[in-house]
Amino acid sequence: MRRRALPAHDGSTFPRTREDAALRTQVVIIGAGPAGLLLGHVLHRAGIGFTILEARSREHVLGRIRAGVLEQGSVDALTELGLDADLREHGLTHRGIHLQFEGARRHIDFVDLVGRTVTIYGQQALVRHLLAEHERLGSDIRFELADVTPLGLDGSSPRVRATDAGRAIELDADLVVGADGFHGVCRPAIPGLRGLERSYPFGWLGILADVPPSTDDLVYALHPDGFAMHSMRSPEVSRLYLQVGHDASIDDWSDARIWDALQTRLGVAGWTLHEGEVLEKSITPMRSYVASTMAHGRLFLVGDAAHIVPPTGAKGLNSAIADVVLLGRAIVAGLLRGDDAGLHGYGDAALARQWKVQQFSEWMTDLLHVHEGPDAAAREFAYRSQVGRLEYVTGSRAARQSLAEQYAGLPFTTE
Amino acid sequence: MRRRALPAHDGSTFPRTREDAALRTQVVIIGAGPAGLLLGHVLHRAGIGFTILEARSREHVLGRIRAGVLEQGSVDALTELGLDADLREHGLTHRGIHLQFEGARRHIDFVDLVGRTVTIYGQQALVRHLLAEHERLGSDIRFELADVTPLGLDGSSPRVRATDAGRAIELDADLVVGADGFHGVCRPAIPGLRGLERSYPFGWLGILADVPPSTDDLVYALHPDGFAMHSMRSPEVSRLYLQVGHDASIDDWSDARIWDALQTRLGVAGWTLHEGEVLEKSITPMRSYVASTMAHGRLFLVGDAAHIVPPTGAKGLNSAIADVVLLGRAIVAGLLRGDDAGLHGYGDAALARQWKVQQFSEWMTDLLHVHEGPDAAAREFAYRSQVGRLEYVTGSRAARQSLAEQYAGLPFTTE
Repeated sequence: MRRRALPAHDGSTFPRTREDAALRTQVVIIGAGPAGLLLGHVLHRAGIGFTILEARSREHVLGRIRAGVLEQGSVDALTELGLDADLREHGLTHRGIHLQFEGARRHIDFVDLVGRTVTIYGQQALVRHLLAEHERLGSDIRFELADVTPLGLDGSSPRVRATDAGRAIELDADLVVGADGFHGVCRPAIPGLRGLERSYPFGWLGILADVPPSTDDLVYALHPDGFAMHSMRSPEVSRLYLQVGHDASIDDWSDARIWDALQTRLGVAGWTLHEGEVLEKSITPMRSYVASTMAHGRLFLVGDAAHIVPPTGAKGLNSAIADVVLLGRAIVAGLLRGDDAGLHGYGDAALARQWKVQQFSEWMTDLLHVHEGPDAAAREFAYRSQVGRLEYVTGSRAARQSLAEQYAGLPFTTE
Repeated sequence: MRRRALPAHDGSTFPRTREDAALRTQVVIIGAGPAGLLLGHVLHRAGIGFTILEARSREHVLGRIRAGVLEQGSVDALTELGLDADLREHGLTHRGIHLQFEGARRHIDFVDLVGRTVTIYGQQALVRHLLAEHERLGSDIRFELADVTPLGLDGSSPRVRATDAGRAIELDADLVVGADGFHGVCRPAIPGLRGLERSYPFGWLGILADVPPSTDDLVYALHPDGFAMHSMRSPEVSRLYLQVGHDASIDDWSDARIWDALQTRLGVAGWTLHEGEVLEKSITPMRSYVASTMAHGRLFLVGDAAHIVPPTGAKGLNSAIADVVLLGRAIVAGLLRGDDAGLHGYGDAALARQWKVQQFSEWMTDLLHVHEGPDAAAREFAYRSQVGRLEYVTGSRAARQSLAEQYAGLPFTTE
């Protein structure tokens, strides 16, 4: 057993003894989403003790349907950690994407352009696999905690308080990691932190449909009625999206209306969009957000806790993984070798990569969505300029390469 | 003499005889700016008769200070027409541009990236040279016309009416070309034409300064105070720009304030911006505009008459030249060989290229200017996203290539 100074636990159940009220671990990870779970595996492999605290239930965590595209770098990171077995079995390797506009569909071939691929693999499947692996290892993961509160972040002895089934507990640690998502408690615990953001006056209506995908690679379509996208979860299940107004209600979107809109926006000559039963539908607002800092004293933020992107570039999950790889390396150097340079530099390094990711997500979003404007002339200008950009990008090898290297993923390590 | 069915004229003076009130020429060009003058040379070389009608005085036309960067394709077009003598003598060949942000200046080397250059050569010098060449050839160019009105554009016999020194004249023609700029009479003569546009809440304060340039290649700078640019007109004269509010008044900008702002926004360690006497200063609003069509019956629009761009990408003059090359070829095929395909296709072909140019100009403008936003969080997001984009673009060879191929100029011919 390489984990140190920690009692052994039998998975997710916290032994409810008096002594447990004041525990010590090396790293407290707040949040059992993909970022927190993955960081746990990184620390486990290095023999660093950790505890993961999660406010929601295990079932809730396993039930969330989110992103579905892994960059090459994310796949590489999972592979390096030996966490790629399920991914290899169920992931779908894609060599590019289709960009569609004005009735034409043009393929951007990442393999040809930058020698890389992306992998379609749902965040839900990743979380399930990461959690199963943790349970196999006997990792200390606690669900359904209330009042989770990071404390003492400025000093050398940070701790996290929480309420577990009505009982107060406190964990002392060397470091606290905020992997608790956009609505978590860690980001607000950083004094003076500013949120930089852009909101979009539209959202995505997404459906899971019980029908084999009608396309090989993902289709991103600009249509005068709005953006549409054809993605997939498996060879049997399609995932499709429609741009809707930011105040749209799911009640106004019957399955028939959704399929009609998808047929209109995704339609091209000689191709058929196959319809199927709608298994799930929901509307997600679109937002760009970056915290002004990702570290404070002994607290470090990863993933959605620090930044969110509109989903157009498929960067949310991949950014979280990139953060975890960077922070994991820094924690290992700091706690095992006493080299704190990586921890001191983490915030700036993660933000530098994140801003490149943000501008790409913004660029993809602006490129493919129909925009409001002060008047018809401005709306038509915006649309025509987007078509001009799509014509340019799909017609220029340099521009296609630039798109491909960003979509398939910028390097995880900072220079 | 290759020009046909036209009386010979002695340059710019129109013989005031009774017969002149109803003349015939093959092509009436409305506007003696760079587009109209260049098209005249294209037609002259093909032996096609033309008359150029200009509302302003010769002195006014020669006095306008405008763009100063020629794409490789523009230089090639002038060379092919034998109009490059002055350009070769006075133009400055540049192998790239500098992008500056966050105190760093990074060079984008067009020669290395795409094997092309741009040439710094003022529009004023180009107009002077094109006009002098027309006068040498005895071309029919008439200045200070009032009430210029294109008529009969739907039929096979268009004509243009005008008032010349108080006297009504009318020219019959095969074709009429609107090269009369954004405020000209030709675009409004097209029924049903829509203007697609985007306005920007800022403008450029530009100065001509009597001081040798402090830089080799042009400097485009993003600074928290706003965009700044260091350009030049000659080895002795610098041209510099500052982003100002769209409602800024030149009276609020003393020479001292201008230099202060330039020093702040363009300053980088180890480099000196040399100041000199301000020879000229003015504020130009920024706007993107594209007409929904560039042709109607026998009328064809070129250059600013059909579209304008914000100056950030240096595309205004180059777009006009691209239009002229395309239209010139179509007119020669139509009038000399009876092949009207080029004329029929001109509007769509010119617009297709124009929209690529528009999106690039918009991209450069958005990238480098400080933007308003609903609040501080949105403004800071926009600025940081721009820095992220500049970091990405300057750090990626594919992105630099894409920038270089667009700045140095997309091909003139359509595919």
